[in-house]
Amino acid sequence: MRGEKMTNEQKCNIGVIGLGVMGSSLAKNMINHGFCTALYSVSDQERKRFESGKNNYRIFGSIKEFISSLERPRKVFLMITAGKPVDMVIASLLPLLDRGDIIMDGGNSYYKDTAVRCSECAKLGILYMGIGISGGEKGALYGPSIMAGGSPQAWECVRAILEAIAARHQGKACCGYIAEGGAGHYVKMVHNGIEYAVLELIAETYQYMRFVKKMGAGEIRSVFEQWNEGPLNSYLIEISATVLGKKEEDGGCLIDKILDVAEQKGTGKWTVAESVERGVYIPSIYEAQMARIFSTKKEERTYGAANLKYSSNEAPGLRTEEMEKALLLSMILAYSQGFELISKAAEEENWNIDLAGLAAVWKDGCIIRSALLGRIEQAEELSGKPLILSAAFSDIGTLEGSLRKMAAAAVLSGMPLPCIQASLQYYDYYRSDQMPVNFIQALRDYFGAHTYMRCDREGHFHTEWE
Amino acid sequence: MRGEKMTNEQKCNIGVIGLGVMGSSLAKNMINHGFCTALYSVSDQERKRFESGKNNYRIFGSIKEFISSLERPRKVFLMITAGKPVDMVIASLLPLLDRGDIIMDGGNSYYKDTAVRCSECAKLGILYMGIGISGGEKGALYGPSIMAGGSPQAWECVRAILEAIAARHQGKACCGYIAEGGAGHYVKMVHNGIEYAVLELIAETYQYMRFVKKMGAGEIRSVFEQWNEGPLNSYLIEISATVLGKKEEDGGCLIDKILDVAEQKGTGKWTVAESVERGVYIPSIYEAQMARIFSTKKEERTYGAANLKYSSNEAPGLRTEEMEKALLLSMILAYSQGFELISKAAEEENWNIDLAGLAAVWKDGCIIRSALLGRIEQAEELSGKPLILSAAFSDIGTLEGSLRKMAAAAVLSGMPLPCIQASLQYYDYYRSDQMPVNFIQALRDYFGAHTYMRCDREGHFHTEWE
Repeated sequence: MRGEKMTNEQKCNIGVIGLGVMGSSLAKNMINHGFCTALYSVSDQERKRFESGKNNYRIFGSIKEFISSLERPRKVFLMITAGKPVDMVIASLLPLLDRGDIIMDGGNSYYKDTAVRCSECAKLGILYMGIGISGGEKGALYGPSIMAGGSPQAWECVRAILEAIAARHQGKACCGYIAEGGAGHYVKMVHNGIEYAVLELIAETYQYMRFVKKMGAGEIRSVFEQWNEGPLNSYLIEISATVLGKKEEDGGCLIDKILDVAEQKGTGKWTVAESVERGVYIPSIYEAQMARIFSTKKEERTYGAANLKYSSNEAPGLRTEEMEKALLLSMILAYSQGFELISKAAEEENWNIDLAGLAAVWKDGCIIRSALLGRIEQAEELSGKPLILSAAFSDIGTLEGSLRKMAAAAVLSGMPLPCIQASLQYYDYYRSDQMPVNFIQALRDYFGAHTYMRCDREGHFHTEWE
Repeated sequence: MRGEKMTNEQKCNIGVIGLGVMGSSLAKNMINHGFCTALYSVSDQERKRFESGKNNYRIFGSIKEFISSLERPRKVFLMITAGKPVDMVIASLLPLLDRGDIIMDGGNSYYKDTAVRCSECAKLGILYMGIGISGGEKGALYGPSIMAGGSPQAWECVRAILEAIAARHQGKACCGYIAEGGAGHYVKMVHNGIEYAVLELIAETYQYMRFVKKMGAGEIRSVFEQWNEGPLNSYLIEISATVLGKKEEDGGCLIDKILDVAEQKGTGKWTVAESVERGVYIPSIYEAQMARIFSTKKEERTYGAANLKYSSNEAPGLRTEEMEKALLLSMILAYSQGFELISKAAEEENWNIDLAGLAAVWKDGCIIRSALLGRIEQAEELSGKPLILSAAFSDIGTLEGSLRKMAAAAVLSGMPLPCIQASLQYYDYYRSDQMPVNFIQALRDYFGAHTYMRCDREGHFHTEWE
């Protein structure tokens, strides 16, 4: 009955709970693709506001009637605020569902919560999925990137619907099954972590052009437009150019009037906390998260700017092509860090994640879609070693000199570009067959008898140093 | 009866549970200070091994007899492995104790566990303290730094004993009451975080001398010895020189034979996790923790060293005095970060912490004891703004150029010194009245309608960017 006018007796293919910005956009996407869709919201206002030019949907204010309207196995998509509301709605659904019915959570839920909900529902014979959805309001409406995790049995049931509503890249749906439990929400969380880093790297490059190279917003805009035609081609570079072109009524650039104080949502913080817990070095994502945190210290920064000394240095100037190379390499390094975190989590959680497939899912629809993801998809042995050591990225040697030059220029200009610096540190760490950790081990053995290992013999050793 | 020979009828002043390395050292310290001390261990071996030239102690294998031997209010010091063992021992003690008796935990317990134990014990009328002890085996024996937290009533009862066994700096005991709940263990955790950063900064400076300046271990040793006579004077600089002097039987330097792969205990990781959770920027401690984590990737590092390109650059060379200034400033920046984290936690946990007093507690006995702490103790308005903005540190302008030069030299030499870099980023962030976060806010508003604030007007704004 897909795509036909509905009668009251006809059953709906799928149901959506929650008609906020993301929920109503996703529902319209389903409706536009011809799926008969049941909609439910507790909010009169949300129900009244919902409008679609089509007629293959029904709106309910009663959860019982909503559930009764669904064909079996019932497919219920939650598009509500993450956290307690999800547990409350699940609790209200369970008495109305039968074994084999499917609950999908499309919000930004914490992956551990999703894992618990999966196993709790499984005990009752309910199939649960945690589904990462990226692309904002427009993505949800016209085609988001969809990272599905949880019950593989449910995936087979809902796959056709999810693939139909997802973004497409060269005809292929940007939608994939990641792994069991909370894996879908996990990779969405890391997607956001990478997004934080890429945003910060672009912003730092802007900062360098604006305040070290003293370029105006218009000039910088042209540079971003040009870059978007090359290997940096991506959604975020594209909208960077647009943002820089936005004028105020008085003719001034809007960007110059925006306060440099950020808010941040939970996913960046979760990504960093995860990396600390699992012991994965993702310094670019760390610095990107912390840049937003530190920005709130506006008063201290202004005081410091007036009181902390900077001794002027001659810094090397970078040509536009060099900045392009520096930004490209630093982005590759940020993706590399994100994929390392996913690999480690997959290993520890026993998730069998196809990393190349994940790169393909991110190729369109999501915020970090970029030409780079096509290259990442081609990288071999993704899970065996970090991206930057893959043969697919053997060309990064041609970019390294520019990133190094930009990092040195920033240090000497007194301009903090911590995400650029951290990216280079990550690169240089992978070049370090000798770290100074031997010295730390000696000191720890001195004051705490913690023992050390040797280069030339097996075993743990302790020395009486005095 | 302090200091006299004991009879079986005499009661002990204090009891120590656990006779491992730290427990037996602390017990001997108490005994040597004349406190009649009861000792308890489940391990026959530990009880047999314990030896003290004094006779003002009694050893028990029965917990009941151990408790009966204590004068009231009973004071029981736990020196056992953190985690579940602490809860198990507390559970076994509670039926034997009376209201007003005191339990002290001198291990590296997680501060949230300590807070829970405090309030659980308080419900039963038992006074609980979480006590951070730093200084390793020798510190415990001859005088550790003692950070007491928990019941203020208990503090008054045990203060005399703790002050007697603590290290002394110019006659003053390096022992203080921090605040209620888990505050003692919290500041001990941050102490260890600062220790991680200082160790890493010293190691990176060594690395720079060894592999960029191509200095031998003997030469570097002389430099550290010289530095220990100046403003860098500290325990860790002192033992750095000793470590570098250690020769093997074949005449080679031991340091060159130690493998650059580290282990790490929980407190560094906890400190970083805490800073992420509370939103405090402590990049030097983050990099120090991550250096140990990353060191375990020896195989990938060796592969990368052979395969990742480095384009040679001319880097500025640093004189010994410049390296000294760079190291001194980076250490100040690491302490500043640690104190920021403590300030934020104190604010959020309602701990009334005297930060100058805490600096005084760290002036001797602990691993990070240093001349710097004397200066920190003098800093005004510690909790109001970061250390580096205090008038007491207005001289850091004379150090800044050297740290900047070292950071640039490292970048250009292809040598990752992430803790040195991160320290400079922290410094430069405090000099930034303009961060590029305005650009991030514009992009976030573009793709997610997250809104932004303006420099020239109050409120939150959203723009249709296209």
